[in-house]
Amino acid sequence: MADVDCCVVGAGFAGLAAALRLKQAGRSLALLEARDRVGGRTFTEVLDDGTWIDRGGAWIGPGQDRIKALMAEFGAEEYKEYVDGDAMMILDGKQHRYSGTIPWAMSPWAIANLGAGLLEVELMCKTIPFDAPWEAKKAVEWDRISLGEWINRHMRSKQAREMLDMALAGIYTSAGSEVSLLWALHQMGSGGGPGFVISNKGGAQDARVRGGMGAVYGPMAAELGGALHLSQPVHLIAHDDDGVTVHAESLTVRARQAIVAVPLAVASQIVYEPVLPVDRMFLHQRMPSGAVFKISVVYDTAFWRADGLCGQSAAPGSPATLTIDACTDTGTPGIMCVITEGPAARRLGLLDATERKAVVIGELIDRFGRKAASPVSYHEQNWTVERYSGGGMISHAPPGVLTEFGPALRAPCGRIHWAGTESSAIMCGWIDGAVRSGERAAAEVLAAESVAAA
Amino acid sequence: MADVDCCVVGAGFAGLAAALRLKQAGRSLALLEARDRVGGRTFTEVLDDGTWIDRGGAWIGPGQDRIKALMAEFGAEEYKEYVDGDAMMILDGKQHRYSGTIPWAMSPWAIANLGAGLLEVELMCKTIPFDAPWEAKKAVEWDRISLGEWINRHMRSKQAREMLDMALAGIYTSAGSEVSLLWALHQMGSGGGPGFVISNKGGAQDARVRGGMGAVYGPMAAELGGALHLSQPVHLIAHDDDGVTVHAESLTVRARQAIVAVPLAVASQIVYEPVLPVDRMFLHQRMPSGAVFKISVVYDTAFWRADGLCGQSAAPGSPATLTIDACTDTGTPGIMCVITEGPAARRLGLLDATERKAVVIGELIDRFGRKAASPVSYHEQNWTVERYSGGGMISHAPPGVLTEFGPALRAPCGRIHWAGTESSAIMCGWIDGAVRSGERAAAEVLAAESVAAA
Repeated sequence: MADVDCCVVGAGFAGLAAALRLKQAGRSLALLEARDRVGGRTFTEVLDDGTWIDRGGAWIGPGQDRIKALMAEFGAEEYKEYVDGDAMMILDGKQHRYSGTIPWAMSPWAIANLGAGLLEVELMCKTIPFDAPWEAKKAVEWDRISLGEWINRHMRSKQAREMLDMALAGIYTSAGSEVSLLWALHQMGSGGGPGFVISNKGGAQDARVRGGMGAVYGPMAAELGGALHLSQPVHLIAHDDDGVTVHAESLTVRARQAIVAVPLAVASQIVYEPVLPVDRMFLHQRMPSGAVFKISVVYDTAFWRADGLCGQSAAPGSPATLTIDACTDTGTPGIMCVITEGPAARRLGLLDATERKAVVIGELIDRFGRKAASPVSYHEQNWTVERYSGGGMISHAPPGVLTEFGPALRAPCGRIHWAGTESSAIMCGWIDGAVRSGERAAAEVLAAESVAAA
Repeated sequence: MADVDCCVVGAGFAGLAAALRLKQAGRSLALLEARDRVGGRTFTEVLDDGTWIDRGGAWIGPGQDRIKALMAEFGAEEYKEYVDGDAMMILDGKQHRYSGTIPWAMSPWAIANLGAGLLEVELMCKTIPFDAPWEAKKAVEWDRISLGEWINRHMRSKQAREMLDMALAGIYTSAGSEVSLLWALHQMGSGGGPGFVISNKGGAQDARVRGGMGAVYGPMAAELGGALHLSQPVHLIAHDDDGVTVHAESLTVRARQAIVAVPLAVASQIVYEPVLPVDRMFLHQRMPSGAVFKISVVYDTAFWRADGLCGQSAAPGSPATLTIDACTDTGTPGIMCVITEGPAARRLGLLDATERKAVVIGELIDRFGRKAASPVSYHEQNWTVERYSGGGMISHAPPGVLTEFGPALRAPCGRIHWAGTESSAIMCGWIDGAVRSGERAAAEVLAAESVAAA
């Protein structure tokens, strides 16, 4: 049995950041990871020719200072997302190219409706105290209904409704009817609002990391050396007044404190003895993950660029709901990323792998022409069925949960501390939020030591 | 390793009924129960003097034909709930006695508002096809909002709002904001509507079983003999084209088919290999349990009866939200049952046991006089922290879940079948629904055998 100052469960960015900061503070630790790799909901694959593919979280943007600090620490550099050329929108089966942020293909009424809706969401976001969204003036009112209900009430135009549902509910990789309006406002607002969420340049898809996210999590893991234990799913966490005993696959760790840094649906599969305080236990039952495919299609060249397209397209409800240019910083080879979320991803998942590939490539041919028919390689990541993510992309709070159980997102339970991007008050749901949550949990652990010593 | 026709997981009424029907059909089976007792969310305690206390589900009513069939099979008899005398309602700290079903203590405006609300809910319930609530004409609209939102929109009177929230949202032992309106309509409607739900005489609290529910589940368990294995929590269910292998604490069972008959939050703690179909896996993440205390206070006599009270009282938000006479059929000793649900139960759970008892007895003294100060014994059941129930009382669907994932409630996943009262189209959420779900799953298993043999 290993005996350490702190045991960290989960080696996604939250757990890695927590462990790194504790190690830098001179603490002994064990970092237990269920998978045979680190990175959690980020996952960089490096092809034989050195091309990297981010099969999970990939983009960074302004204000995401903590992931940028880690990049600086390990010498990873950013490069800007490719935004030259037109974007494309598919409405009722018809393609429309547009430039700028306003999709002129929509009817004037739909554009007005969509613009007013986005503005209203932006303004609502600004009223949320992000460290305590349950204290927003309208928290109770907004937490009683779903994001889907709000969209339906306020978007009278069918085109605007479908577009807003795709852009906003899509984030939660679940139906809009499942997601609390208050949670959505909190999550989007914690990054700056829907404008930030949906934007490339200057927004959440502003840039990527040269070498992929692995260029950050790889060196972090290396820094942790022997403290990192892969393929060690945790079954049981026993906790008492003196410490914590973490039982993993073939390793038992005794620690003065623990940090659990996994998605809520995964935390719910661990047994805690004694049982956790009710609000935390219930939170584990109440914040599900969603369905999402992230598919990277590699071509000889980014041929769409030559056609004046940036590679971004949106087709609400289609099997390839969103596409975005995902080339490395050199622009070669061409990498087109397809992201399909929520109900559409569940439908796509019912096809067998061959059918699914045919359908996805078919969509790319429709949008980008015959050249899309000949990929060099096809890389499909179905986060939906990733047991140790609980699904994709982030956990969401259904109606009622944030006002009833919100404080339990971060409140330590004795010697157990909680990390994970969903617990971050800033950049909640992004990689940066994961880093912040890990650093916050590490600070909690150090502060608790001081209290114990005093 | 045991080798049987069917392995049933969970020995509540659903699992017991499934196992019993399969045994009666001549099948070999293993029934695995995590606890050291059967009964699940029912639990009869028998005191030294023979008095029985139902610490969990206890009441039965008209239309609950399958639990009544089991009672007849095992010679268990019913007796009527005591309804003579006045009920009591506590509004804004003041007590009001009333008789009949209309709480005249409320303002005329509140009574009218409450009556209209109940009628509207009753009418909405009637539009739900209970075997497929997601196909109701207004399913999408009703599933986008919470029951709490509906109550808030339609109950303009504060008194009516609090009363309806207690009466309807209380069922789900969670905040009304957490529960889908569609789920509530489906669940209540599956028993006949809110009138049935809240009524004693002729309703869901019409009668009880002489000897308690244990007088039914006890003989059922005895009938199963060596097939029943207690203290065998199931960790893993591996399934393939040929059969199912169920891994429990110290027993592994190979079976041609399996029936999982546990609440959704408990089913979510079992690992399935290979991973379940996405919709079922996601349903496991999405139907939480709630918080509920059921406290039975035993007195020498049912002294409230002599005072012209039936023992029923309602005090929205108080630590003893509901009280109800829970005497045995002889009426002696006096047993007063206190039920506290949802947020109030979570608050009550924060007190230590001594404080909690003092608070609860204090409430009973306020309502029923000084005689309430001297109980013979006090029996507290906190279902909230019952690991193998996942909480109390029943699982609920948050907004969006029933329309997105509803069919997965019952659809078998290969050789794994699903039981549990939440999966019943009739009397969903009651003991009768549990029995129906078990019998339905047993019939599925037998039908699948015929298909395999053909």
